[in-house]
Amino acid sequence: MHRTKVRVAEDALDANTTIAQANRADFDRESVRVVNLMSAPGAGKTTLLEAVFREGLGALRAGVLEGDVQGSLDADRLAHFHVPVTQINTDGGFGGECHLDANMVRSALGEVPLDEIDLLIIENVGNLVCPAEFRVGEDAKAMVCSVTEGEDKPLKYPLMFRTCELVVVNKIDLLPHLDYDLDKLIYNIEAVNPGVEHMLLSARTGEGVEGFRDWLVRAGDREGAPA
Amino acid sequence: MHRTKVRVAEDALDANTTIAQANRADFDRESVRVVNLMSAPGAGKTTLLEAVFREGLGALRAGVLEGDVQGSLDADRLAHFHVPVTQINTDGGFGGECHLDANMVRSALGEVPLDEIDLLIIENVGNLVCPAEFRVGEDAKAMVCSVTEGEDKPLKYPLMFRTCELVVVNKIDLLPHLDYDLDKLIYNIEAVNPGVEHMLLSARTGEGVEGFRDWLVRAGDREGAPA
Repeated sequence: MHRTKVRVAEDALDANTTIAQANRADFDRESVRVVNLMSAPGAGKTTLLEAVFREGLGALRAGVLEGDVQGSLDADRLAHFHVPVTQINTDGGFGGECHLDANMVRSALGEVPLDEIDLLIIENVGNLVCPAEFRVGEDAKAMVCSVTEGEDKPLKYPLMFRTCELVVVNKIDLLPHLDYDLDKLIYNIEAVNPGVEHMLLSARTGEGVEGFRDWLVRAGDREGAPA
Repeated sequence: MHRTKVRVAEDALDANTTIAQANRADFDRESVRVVNLMSAPGAGKTTLLEAVFREGLGALRAGVLEGDVQGSLDADRLAHFHVPVTQINTDGGFGGECHLDANMVRSALGEVPLDEIDLLIIENVGNLVCPAEFRVGEDAKAMVCSVTEGEDKPLKYPLMFRTCELVVVNKIDLLPHLDYDLDKLIYNIEAVNPGVEHMLLSARTGEGVEGFRDWLVRAGDREGAPA
């Protein structure tokens, strides 16, 4: 019984990898770099993207693929910035899927103007578990963790912190009002993903957002990408 | 292909329902009431339980079943209060399961001293999607939502808010430091689950925790439960 369950899961991940490679081929054909942006619910992914788009990304043309169980609240927020935004809702699954997988992304690619953008930011469903398990064809994974969530999250959700190339620590404007040990968070991040890049910022006040903007510009740089 | 996928999901939920009923029968046999406590990561479930156990539950004997992907950080915190705590780790699944299901709870029941408690609090994995989809044999579902997560969460994760008998709004001590519209949250909760009980509190300062303690005492009342 347990064996069978594991095999089904492995099959699902194998199928996902195959479709992720097909997505990757499409992105490469159009020279589009892709960032998979993940976090717990309410950690501030959309507010961070709003802060970035408010300043702009220079010559880099960005698009967003917005993943939500239901609705288009975040997509509507980002549409104000004249960035092409495509919505994926995951509530076709039973009760709603808690993550994007390669096939869901693939099903939406026809609506994404890949030939008009350099960087596609995929805003995943708010969840610290399953989004980390499914590659979607991205170049890099980044996560946002909010200081309001406590310092223990890297130890409780290690795969998410381990799988990312960047950990954004958000809502630092609230630090004076919390019992929070930032050193402990950094220590815990290092414990599960030694040497991973991290940055501190407040999407709300704008403090430190420039660092994330620069990271996105580097992530979207087509130098070295297949022509 | 899509048909098959949906059928597998339905089969999984049917199997879950059967096992949840077996759990329910065990709980009834021992006259134990069960609360399934859910939230996003870092919303404050464990801090709230700490605040409750600090004051105690009167004559009510409580136990905790602690669900985490990995580790026993929360169980260790609660063990200080001389409450029986049993840990379930979900990382047997691929990368870690993002929720507790009836079978995971069943596999741990041998370790739970059902004959010594009146109320079992199941602290689910931090996630606003899948935990709402799997009954585990509970009498009531409660969720904690933190004001730091934004007012839009009921609309983005409607099943979670719809499936609960109680919505605890936590971290209200931070309201003066946030751009947050509490009326909007209440409006959104009402939109997806009209008339659902909700309460405002701060597990950190203790403000309003008494209300949740009283709710637990009522939830644990065996009056009307099978002998």
